[in-house]
Order: sequence, then structure tokens, then C-alpha cells
Amino acid sequence: MGNLKKAKSIHSKPIDQYTGIEVTGDFEPFEQKFDIYCRAMWDPKIKSQKTDAFFDGYYMPHAKARATDGFSLKDYAFRNAAWHVNNVIRDIEKSGEFRQEKPNEIRKEGFWDYYTSHDQGWHEPYPYENAAEATRDLKKIAGFCGIGDLGVCRYDQRWMYDSIFSMQGNGQKPQEIPKDITNVIVTLEPMDRDLIKTVPSALSGAATGLGYTFDGVSIITLAQYIRNMGYRAYATLNDSALCIPLALQAGLGEVGRHGLLINEKYGPRFRIGKIFTDMPLEISKPKKIGVREFCDGCDRCAKACPPKAIPFDAPSDHVHSESNLKGVVKWTPSAEKCFKFWANQNTDCIICIRTCPYNRDFSKLIHRLWFKLAASPFRGLALKLDDLWMDRGRLKTSHWWRPELEKIEKNDHSKRVKKRK
Amino acid sequence: MGNLKKAKSIHSKPIDQYTGIEVTGDFEPFEQKFDIYCRAMWDPKIKSQKTDAFFDGYYMPHAKARATDGFSLKDYAFRNAAWHVNNVIRDIEKSGEFRQEKPNEIRKEGFWDYYTSHDQGWHEPYPYENAAEATRDLKKIAGFCGIGDLGVCRYDQRWMYDSIFSMQGNGQKPQEIPKDITNVIVTLEPMDRDLIKTVPSALSGAATGLGYTFDGVSIITLAQYIRNMGYRAYATLNDSALCIPLALQAGLGEVGRHGLLINEKYGPRFRIGKIFTDMPLEISKPKKIGVREFCDGCDRCAKACPPKAIPFDAPSDHVHSESNLKGVVKWTPSAEKCFKFWANQNTDCIICIRTCPYNRDFSKLIHRLWFKLAASPFRGLALKLDDLWMDRGRLKTSHWWRPELEKIEKNDHSKRVKKRK
Repeated sequence: MGNLKKAKSIHSKPIDQYTGIEVTGDFEPFEQKFDIYCRAMWDPKIKSQKTDAFFDGYYMPHAKARATDGFSLKDYAFRNAAWHVNNVIRDIEKSGEFRQEKPNEIRKEGFWDYYTSHDQGWHEPYPYENAAEATRDLKKIAGFCGIGDLGVCRYDQRWMYDSIFSMQGNGQKPQEIPKDITNVIVTLEPMDRDLIKTVPSALSGAATGLGYTFDGVSIITLAQYIRNMGYRAYATLNDSALCIPLALQAGLGEVGRHGLLINEKYGPRFRIGKIFTDMPLEISKPKKIGVREFCDGCDRCAKACPPKAIPFDAPSDHVHSESNLKGVVKWTPSAEKCFKFWANQNTDCIICIRTCPYNRDFSKLIHRLWFKLAASPFRGLALKLDDLWMDRGRLKTSHWWRPELEKIEKNDHSKRVKKRK
Repeated sequence: MGNLKKAKSIHSKPIDQYTGIEVTGDFEPFEQKFDIYCRAMWDPKIKSQKTDAFFDGYYMPHAKARATDGFSLKDYAFRNAAWHVNNVIRDIEKSGEFRQEKPNEIRKEGFWDYYTSHDQGWHEPYPYENAAEATRDLKKIAGFCGIGDLGVCRYDQRWMYDSIFSMQGNGQKPQEIPKDITNVIVTLEPMDRDLIKTVPSALSGAATGLGYTFDGVSIITLAQYIRNMGYRAYATLNDSALCIPLALQAGLGEVGRHGLLINEKYGPRFRIGKIFTDMPLEISKPKKIGVREFCDGCDRCAKACPPKAIPFDAPSDHVHSESNLKGVVKWTPSAEKCFKFWANQNTDCIICIRTCPYNRDFSKLIHRLWFKLAASPFRGLALKLDDLWMDRGRLKTSHWWRPELEKIEKNDHSKRVKKRK
């Protein structure tokens, strides 16, 4: 994982040698206002009629339904419905019902701000025998909340947003998660593989929307449980802190070339949630699963990315703009190129997930065996096998809606071929 | 299914012969204010300090955590967290954010009133080729929303609440679902079998709470999809209409002695949702699955019910009070006796579900075979087999939290038995 001695900086921590995170002397904590989606709210270099239309399109009256496969009314209707409950919970605070102390502030909970739609919990912390008891209970309940995978790491100030994005003033307001929080629970909510096969399409955004909706419901439920046991708990999705370094520290996987986390159960196909808490919990161990070495020799996502936002070269601390984290050696995609493509096609894009060799159904033994091969010195063979046997191509959206059409079209095609013969 | 000719009344409909619903001349549509939970709000015969404490207990500061197995702080903490997101969505309207036209009215969406937390849909109905296309798409999307089973029936005025409960005036306000709605989509959200094994306990209420939470999220998402396709859609849980007759008409099962629906996939273990819509849809066929005949010869739920609320005799149109539907021949439990037991133990009770021979995991072949046996003339044998082999007893809640304790206690017990020998 690179030369750790060379990279050692005052910002490094002992855990970095287990996660493979290399922090340099140039490290600076991230200001959320520079997140590409936040910049689309205020930065004229990013914000445009197209980016406005992109966001508006998540509401039906503004959906740009058209004849192109993947962008029909049905595709937008499902995508926007998939996001809907997430939007409702996200915007609750706007009403002032749940945070009467700040009725006029615009929050976007789960994206800009942590969730506040909580009821009062128990008045004193439950006296667990030990962290093992609390962790066992938490994991049991997480399963019932629908959480796919879960790890715990220590609170790490480095990955907290230094300031939170605000639509007011200069776009910054103070971080609200208290610094004396001790632990971070990191959760994964899987996304559907078949929906993702249709990317680029408005339809594939339904996988993302459902991911966010159920991730939000799960972590709010779990955070309410922790509050009900008398501890503090702040449920967060993309807000408040960087997800990936925390997920690495919580032992949930490794980062791939596309800059996304790769997990043993779900590959690159999930949403991340985080709960900041002072509940005493056992800390998970970071785990190397062979992704870094595999991605070193694989460029399938970089090749497939239409705007060429994913780097072909080795991990470095090069940043494309202020939307990237400074002072960490890693594969860093260009947020500008990526988001511009989203805005141009009027929906989000995850072609990098569709084409990733780790985008497999690991509930099946054959794919778990492939994972072991990919983590072994025979990783070159694993990639070859993937090239040969896995279909990384796009599934026509009309075929997603009606799988029987695929067969009919194939038959038609072979009939035509036969005729020609 | 009784003597249909005798029972035929002006309220009967042709579909009744397929559902087994017998409507007599005494039939009256139900006023929601007489629902037992609504009466607990206003009727001095029902409302008491205990019923108030029952409802308050769903919020942690009022939870009556105690040393009794099943009623510890952990049990209440999980139960109340399980309900939490449902409560949040239920109370959204209170803020006036989503229904600014009626900001001061108290609604409880999903319980007293239909859900209103919707965004604007598409401006005109999508021109489906036919109802088959719309139904195929709907079922596909329902699966992604997490819906366990789904059927469609025609709108039936008989099962609509004649008036909706209101905390104002005489407890009645007009029904708001328009009468020109054509179809009702009925959905099932399964509840967890192991949690239910612990009933009576506060913990088992977590199965109910999670059921409501995920049922609510699912049907709001699905209703938003229908709106996004340009049709009207009103998502409802317990509100607006009687669930069970609509579920029967939508082909989702048959009613058991305990008055609950029994379904082929989930037995008696689920929450019901309903979406009222004018989307053109294929109508499902009601289906006899042998429950009526089986329950005729089984009284396990009636025997197990602590307050003896479930009838031992044959279906009749006897009503215990105004909380029962008048003029329908069926097994009718006493809502008063049932709810009084709930209030006394400070949580809901579903011992009737725990002890029902249909409370099985029908994902397993052996239980599907049992279902066939129970639907055959050998139903008496099916009941005997259930008596012999199925554990209908209560699982200690401490063993739910720590399954390994069960083994330790059993070992201790056998050691003691050995010592005595």
C-alpha cells in the first residue's frame, strides 16, 4: 500500500497502515461547500440550466421524459417514486416540526445535514455489562432494520466536514456533530444489480433512490433505538463526514479505482450510512481484501466512463479541483467531469459500478470463489475470466420492463440471420 | 360457506360467493369512531388511565420498563424504535407542510387518515395498452418497494368507513376517498416469526412496528409511482376502509377463527396496506384455501387467548359491541376484551398469531406440504401433526436477545435433573 514511511505526516494515524489510507503533509479537512452537489447550488463554474434541470427532474412535473430507451415516462416515474420517501424524510425539518429551535433554516437531512426526526430517548445510559453486549444487541437489531452490513470505527476528526454547507452566507455553517462522540457505526444498504445493468438510464436511478430511502429508514430506526437506550446518536447519509474513510476504518472493504468502496458481500453496489454515537461498542478491524492489487491491474471502469473521469494511473495525491480531498494518496476521479455527464443526460450515472468486475452476486458460491481468486496472486486470471464470462454491457431498459421482449428480439435477430444464410 | 341463499340481502354482491363473505339484511357500513382504538380516544367506557398509558408507552419517557421478562428497557427501546419512522410519517401532516389547506386539523395518517405526503405526479394518465401492462409493471415495482404479496379488487362501497374519525366535534368527519375510484390494490408486509414467538412481551411489538414502518414506506412509494404515471392513488394502512374484506376480494387469503386474514405465503403474520386508485388494473380472483374448514375444527387461538376474546362457536352475525361490523356472518372477536388485555399489560398482544397452526415459515417445503394437508379432507390429521410437532409456546425474551442462554439454561436444567437422579 505505497511507502507509508515516506507518506507519514502529522495527520497520519496508526490505523492508516491497516486501511491503506496514506495521508500527506498537505492534508486539509474537507469543507462540504466544495462537494460537487453543493457547488451546483452556488458555484457559477458548476451551476447551470442543465444542473438545475437535473435536480428538478426528480420531481415529475419537470421530468424530461423522452423517446430514448431508459428515459421514458415509466423510467422517470419509478425513479422519482423510489426517491420519494427519502425526500419526505429529508425535508421534514423544513416544517420546523422536529427542530423548532431553527424553524427558518433550510436543511436537507441525509445530504447536507444529519437527521433530526427523532423522538426523545431514555433519560440515562443503559448500564451494559460491556461493549460486547451492546454490539451484539446492535447487530441483531440492525438486521431487523434491513441493514445489509455493519462495522464500527472510532470517531476520527480528519474525516468530519470542517464546515457544513448552508444556502445562507458564504455557504458554511459550523459542524454540529459534537467532538466528544466516540464511535461511528457504518452501515451498507445494497442496491439492485438488475436495475444497475440498465445504466445509463433514468431507470437505474431507481436503484439509487430505493437505496437512499431504505438506508435512511434503517439508520433513523437504529439511531432511535440507540437513543431509546439512553445514548446519543446522529444518523447521517452523505452529510456530516466523508463516508469512505470511515467505512474503511470500520472494516467494510477497500477502495477501488473508481473511488468507490468495494465490499465482500455487495461489491461496489450499496449506499453507505453512518451513525455517530457514544454507545460503548466493540471496534471492527479494517481488512485488506485484495482490491488495491486487483484494481492496479484493471481499468475496466476507467475505460467505460464516458467523460473519462476515472484515473488510469496509480493512486496519487493529485486533485482535479477543490471538490477533491487534499493530501490523501488514492484514486481520485474528477467530480466535475462526472457530474457534467450526469447533468447532460439528466440523471445520475453509475456505469463504473455496472462495469466493475466486483459487480457480482456474492450470495452465489461461484462468485465468492471468484472473489478469492481476485484476492490471490492469480488476480490476472480472475480479470481474464471476468472479461470472458461476465456481461458488463447495458441491459436495454425496455427489456428490464419486459424480459420476454429480449427473447423475442433475439429470436427475430436469429431468424433474420438464418434468412440471410 | 354457510347457506348463501338464506343470507342473501340487498347488501350482498356476486363476489361474496367467492370470498365466503355473508352479508345479512342488518348490514351497516362502519363508522370509524367505533373502532376500538378510536373509542380509546373519546369513549369513557374504553378510555382509562391504563389505555392512555398504553399509547404513551410507545414514547420512551413513558415506557413502563420493568423486571418482567419481555418488558425490560431493551424490549421497549427496540419496540418503540421499530414504530418510530412510521410515527414520523404518520404525523407529517400535523406540521401543515404537506396539506397547507388544513393546517390545524389533527390527522394520524395510516391509522385515522390516508397518507398525504405525496409530491405532484404526472399531468395526464399514461396511455397503457391495456390493464395487463399496468398490472405487470405495478407488480414488478411492488417487489422493489419491498411488498410481500399483492392483489387487486374492485372498489366496494360496503367496506369504506362511512365516516372518518376526528378528534373534533362528534368524532366524525366525511370520508375523503372519492367514490369514483375504481380499484383497490391490497398489499401484505410480512412480520417476523421469531419476534412474535416472544408474545406477550413489549419486544414482540417490534414485529408490529417494523411491519407498519416498512408497510407505510412501501405503499407510499408505490402510490407515488402511480401518481407519477398520471393516476390518482391514496395509500392507506388501517384507515379509510376495512382491510380484511378487501384483502379477501383481492385474493390474498381467507379469514381464520381469530378474525385475522390467513395468507398462503405468510400465514397470519403480516400487516395489510391498501391503495385506492383509478389506474386500470387486472382484478385478482378470490381464492378458497381451506382455512374456513380447518378453523371449524381448530380452537387453538381461542383457547390460548388470555381474555377469551375469540369465539369458540361457528361464524355468526353476533356482535359484542358497536366496535364490531354489523350484518356480516363471521368469526367476530370481542374488541373490548382484546384491547383491555393490551392496556393491562401495556403493550399489544398477538398470542392468537403465535399459537395459530398457520403460523409457519411457508418458504420451506415441509410447511407448504402441511398447508396442502390442512386444505384437504385430512385437515384433522394436519391439526394433530401441528399439536405434536410445532412449538406454539412462548420464547423467553431473554433467549431472543441471547439464544445461547437458552442452551445454557437447558444444560443447567438437565444437570439438575441428573443430580437428583
